[in-house]
Amino acid sequence: MQTHTKIFTNPLYLTSGRILEPYQIIYETYGTLNDDKSNAILITHALTGSHHCAGRYEHEKKVGWWDNMVGDHKPIDTTKYFVICANVIGSCYGSTSPISPIYGSFGDNGYYRFKFPVITIQDMVKAIRILLNSLEISCLYAVIGGSMGGMQALSFAILYPKSARAFIPIAMSYSSNPQVIMINKVMREIVMLDSDFKGGNYAINSGELPAFKGLQIARMLGFSQYISLATMQKKFARNYVGTDGAFDLLGRFEIERYLDYNGANFTKYFDPLCYLYLIRALSMYDATLGFDNLENALKKIKSPLHLIGFSGDNMFPINEMLEIKKCMDMLNIPCTFYEVQSDYGHDSFLVEVEKYGEYVKDLIDNIK
Amino acid sequence: MQTHTKIFTNPLYLTSGRILEPYQIIYETYGTLNDDKSNAILITHALTGSHHCAGRYEHEKKVGWWDNMVGDHKPIDTTKYFVICANVIGSCYGSTSPISPIYGSFGDNGYYRFKFPVITIQDMVKAIRILLNSLEISCLYAVIGGSMGGMQALSFAILYPKSARAFIPIAMSYSSNPQVIMINKVMREIVMLDSDFKGGNYAINSGELPAFKGLQIARMLGFSQYISLATMQKKFARNYVGTDGAFDLLGRFEIERYLDYNGANFTKYFDPLCYLYLIRALSMYDATLGFDNLENALKKIKSPLHLIGFSGDNMFPINEMLEIKKCMDMLNIPCTFYEVQSDYGHDSFLVEVEKYGEYVKDLIDNIK
Repeated sequence: MQTHTKIFTNPLYLTSGRILEPYQIIYETYGTLNDDKSNAILITHALTGSHHCAGRYEHEKKVGWWDNMVGDHKPIDTTKYFVICANVIGSCYGSTSPISPIYGSFGDNGYYRFKFPVITIQDMVKAIRILLNSLEISCLYAVIGGSMGGMQALSFAILYPKSARAFIPIAMSYSSNPQVIMINKVMREIVMLDSDFKGGNYAINSGELPAFKGLQIARMLGFSQYISLATMQKKFARNYVGTDGAFDLLGRFEIERYLDYNGANFTKYFDPLCYLYLIRALSMYDATLGFDNLENALKKIKSPLHLIGFSGDNMFPINEMLEIKKCMDMLNIPCTFYEVQSDYGHDSFLVEVEKYGEYVKDLIDNIK
Repeated sequence: MQTHTKIFTNPLYLTSGRILEPYQIIYETYGTLNDDKSNAILITHALTGSHHCAGRYEHEKKVGWWDNMVGDHKPIDTTKYFVICANVIGSCYGSTSPISPIYGSFGDNGYYRFKFPVITIQDMVKAIRILLNSLEISCLYAVIGGSMGGMQALSFAILYPKSARAFIPIAMSYSSNPQVIMINKVMREIVMLDSDFKGGNYAINSGELPAFKGLQIARMLGFSQYISLATMQKKFARNYVGTDGAFDLLGRFEIERYLDYNGANFTKYFDPLCYLYLIRALSMYDATLGFDNLENALKKIKSPLHLIGFSGDNMFPINEMLEIKKCMDMLNIPCTFYEVQSDYGHDSFLVEVEKYGEYVKDLIDNIK
C-alpha cells in the first residue's frame, strides 16, 4: 500500500467550459504492476469515499472503505493485480478541491471556496484518465466501483472505451433520479443554513476539518438514503434510549442517537464545501451528457460491461440499472447483470461484500 | 361553515403526566346537527392540516384541505351529515399550542415555547373527545381522517370504543416506523439549526408567522416523503430551470425550484415550535401505548373499523395497515381493508380523492 500525490500543470478542461490549472490527484496503489502494465485495476470511490480503499496505516483505527473486497487473496486480489484508487477532484482527501489554494494566491482569500468550478462525474473520470496516462497505463485490466464510483465506471466505459478490458459498475444508475436530486438539494440547504458555514467563508485549516452542525445534519439525511426500512427495523426498531426522557421533546429513539453519532463522526473527516460540490456532481450526473440519448452513449462501449445491483437499493432502484442492460442487449454489446438479493439498502455494496465478493472474484479472474 | 373556539378550564391530563390548564380548541362545523345528535362525523386532520377542511372564507384564495371530499353532495355529504373538524392541541391554527400564552403570565416570557408539554396522538384525541362531550355528542356517526388524522381515528376507536358507529383510518399505521422517526429527527435538527429560531425564543406575533428558512428546509424534506419517485419522475423528471446556469453550483432543477416554492409557502402558515411538537407526536405514535401489544389494544374496539390504504404510500407502507386488518380478523371484530391502486405516494389521500371518494361515500351511507 502506497500513497502518492501527482501534480498536473497542463489545464484540465471541464464540462462546464472552465479550466482547472494546475491540479493534483492523490491516489493509493496496492500490489505490483507487471512488466507489460496489463494487470492494473482501477477502483472508483463513492461520494464520501477516498483513495484509501483498503489496508490500515499505523495511525489509523479503521481500515480502508472496501477492505473486505480489496487485498491479498481477497476478491480483488492484490497478489495478482495492481490496484489503483484515486481521490476524485472536488473531494477533500488531497485531490484539488474547493478547499485547495488557488495557484499564485496568498492568504485565506486564496482558497477556491465557491470560486471552484462545478465538477461533473465525467470530469472526475477525465482527471483519473490523465493520471493513468501519466503512469503509462494505456489499458486497465478492469474498472470497478459502487454508487458514485459506479457512475464513474460507466462513464469511463463510454468516454474511454479502450481504456479497460472490463467495466464493473455497482449499485448505480445512468443518471440521478429526481429523488436523489431532491435529497441533495435539501442537504445543500442544510449545510448553507448553518451560520458557522459563513456562506463558505469559514476558516480553512489544513490540519483539521471544521465539524459543522449543518454538515452533521446533512449527513443524517444522507444516511437515511443508504439503508432500507427493513434494515432500520432490524437495527433500531422503535427502541428508546434508556436514559432519555420519553416525554422530553428532545429525548431520543435509538435511531436518533445513532444519527447524532454518525453525523458528528462524519464531520471529522469531510469538508462542507467539498460536500456541496460532490452532491452537485451526483445530482447533475447523466451518462448521456453530450449524446442524444442513452443508446447513443452506450454504443460507444467496446469492452464488456458487468452490472451489479441490489434488490433492496432504494436510492438507485435496480430497474434503472436494468435499463442499461436492456439497451446494451439491444446494441449487442456484451453486458451482464447480476442481482444481489438483499433488503439492506443502497449501502449493501459496502456492507454485504460477502454476498457478491465471490461473484466479483470470478468476474475479474475471467476477464479476457 | 362555522368556526368556533371553545375554552376548557378543567385540566387536560396528558400521557406525559403533565397537565394543560386551561386550554382551548378551535373547530369548524358544516351542515346541521339533527335532533338526536346522531349524524355527526368527526374529521381528524393530518400533521400540517387544520380545522378548516372544506369551503372557502371570503378572504381566502384556497379552499379547505379536503374540500373535494367534504361538502354538499360530496362523498362526505354536508346536506346529510353534521361535520366537525377540530384543530389538534399543539397545532398553530388556534388550539392551545407552544405559541399560546401561559395563563396568568404577561409579556413575551408568558408563551409556552419549549415549556409546552409533549403531546401524544392519544392526547389530541382526548381533547377532541372532551370537546364532543361539551357539545353533547355522545356517539358520532363516524370518525375519518388520513395520515396523522388516521392515527387519531384508530386511537379514537381504541380509547373511546363507543364514541362512534364506525372508524375510518386512511393512509396510516399503528405506530410510526423508524424511517418516519429518522426523517422527523432530521427535520427537528434543521429547524433548530436556524439561528433565527433562537432556540425557540423568537418573537411571537399573533398577526403573522416568522417564516424561518429552517422550517422551509424541513418542509422540503417532509415533502420528499409525501410523493413517490414515480410522481417526481412524472412531474419534474430531470428538467432544469431554463434561466438557471447549468454549471452554477446553486443552479436549479425544476424539482429544486418547486421545493424552494413549496417550502417558502409553508412557512407563511405554519409555526416552527408547533412543527417540532407535532412531528414529535408523530414519531412517538404507538396505538399500543398503555397496552401489552397490538392485539390487546385492538380488542377494545367495538364498532367496525374501515381501513383505506394506498399501494404507493412509501411513508406508511400498506403492509403496516394490513397488520391491523390481520389482527382485527383474528379478534373477530368487523374490519375492512380497501387498497387504492396508486403510485402517487403518501399524499394520495389528499390529492386523489377521485380514486376513493365514491368508496368513502358508500361506506358512510351504509353505516349501521
